[in-house]
Amino acid sequence: MGNTAQPMRLLLTVSYDGTNYVGWQYQENGPSIQQALEEALEKAVGRFCRVTGASRTDAGVHALGQRAHVDVCASIPPEKYPFVLNRYLPEDIRVTETRQVKDDFHARFMAAGKLYTYRIHNAPHASAILRNCTAHVPVTLDVDAMRACAKALIGTHDFAAFAAAGGQAKTTVRTIDFFDIARDGEEITLRVHGNGFLYNMVRIIAGTLIDVGHGRLDVGCMARAIESKNRLDLGVTAPARGLELTRVEYDFEREEASRA
Amino acid sequence: MGNTAQPMRLLLTVSYDGTNYVGWQYQENGPSIQQALEEALEKAVGRFCRVTGASRTDAGVHALGQRAHVDVCASIPPEKYPFVLNRYLPEDIRVTETRQVKDDFHARFMAAGKLYTYRIHNAPHASAILRNCTAHVPVTLDVDAMRACAKALIGTHDFAAFAAAGGQAKTTVRTIDFFDIARDGEEITLRVHGNGFLYNMVRIIAGTLIDVGHGRLDVGCMARAIESKNRLDLGVTAPARGLELTRVEYDFEREEASRA
Repeated sequence: MGNTAQPMRLLLTVSYDGTNYVGWQYQENGPSIQQALEEALEKAVGRFCRVTGASRTDAGVHALGQRAHVDVCASIPPEKYPFVLNRYLPEDIRVTETRQVKDDFHARFMAAGKLYTYRIHNAPHASAILRNCTAHVPVTLDVDAMRACAKALIGTHDFAAFAAAGGQAKTTVRTIDFFDIARDGEEITLRVHGNGFLYNMVRIIAGTLIDVGHGRLDVGCMARAIESKNRLDLGVTAPARGLELTRVEYDFEREEASRA
Repeated sequence: MGNTAQPMRLLLTVSYDGTNYVGWQYQENGPSIQQALEEALEKAVGRFCRVTGASRTDAGVHALGQRAHVDVCASIPPEKYPFVLNRYLPEDIRVTETRQVKDDFHARFMAAGKLYTYRIHNAPHASAILRNCTAHVPVTLDVDAMRACAKALIGTHDFAAFAAAGGQAKTTVRTIDFFDIARDGEEITLRVHGNGFLYNMVRIIAGTLIDVGHGRLDVGCMARAIESKNRLDLGVTAPARGLELTRVEYDFEREEASRA
């Protein structure tokens, strides 16, 4: 490395097709996004750098805007990292943006908001083209019933019923401030924004709404589950392939945006 | 097969992700869509049936609504074939509709209209998620210049300049009655409808428009090429992965629609 190298913490925006990965986090049973990024970084800067992601997405889950931080010491200008890293990364992982952040910045603990998208292909036959990024539901779903059910999610609630085992959250209270369900032909898109989500929470919400759209669960089930804190009041966990981590937000960016 | 089996000609609507195929047509160097369909049909009806496609899409080209005809003799009701065939087909090929047609129907020679879609991911870095169904162009394209250029395509013209070697068309005169260019964030979508297209014609149009959007070719080039019939007046052939055969139309369906 050149003698102009300065140690710095970088914030990365990462997009990936999660189909061929065991998930974000390093695991022994297959390739992870984290590992692919760390290997590309090692090639780029000549030493191992630990990457810390904002969200530990599961196997098969995609990301348009995952975020991660990493400490590097190299003579590469911060904004040039996408070009360098994408040279070494597989085609299904792209770093789309990098910037320097303060040394105490933490991609996961400082995340102030997240937007998730869940896509349903609602047609008699699965989609050949969208098969890896949609859940296929052959029976026509009642989107109005799904919307009525989802209304109960808005606000600050104890979402204990919405967490799969294996989560490590200290509290199960979360705030959801936006939930949208749109139908465009055969595609139904759910978008949910909140300050944070429990393990499998979005997939449990999506699976429950699919059951409601089917008529297998009533529109009151979501409100009831918030009250009861009982996972059994909710539906199945929807398939990972339909889920995308669309955006992760930080307060310092919101402040920048409000100043601009 | 049961003794209720009746010989009949079927019209299939087929959707596929062309990424892992050598193209529509049977080839020795790898799997084709046609071959996959014929193998699935053989499993379904117990004998080999030749499938004839409306369009011989190239390697890597996708289809939302390819059409094909085939003669079968089996006790399966015509509309049930998608369910049977999709059981045997790989996930990246789906038959979405089947119907009985007259015995002299021909999917290719009777095609009266086709709609193609070409997708460009116009962003500094390629898309991890859309990598197989978009052409990546890192430089911001001038969509207004592309629109101005594409206007020359509308109408009935001799498109001799727009054909790659290897085509078998008797005439190079074609009619294009619709051309739309839309930008949605980082995605630019071209849609072109006409009565037929020469070999590689849509990819040559897309590649030329990308060159015009770049400023490497002037907006008059398309009109000039129609006049000159010279392939050299046009730009590069855009990558196959951005192209999708969206729809194939037949007169008998148009008549049904107008009666309905």
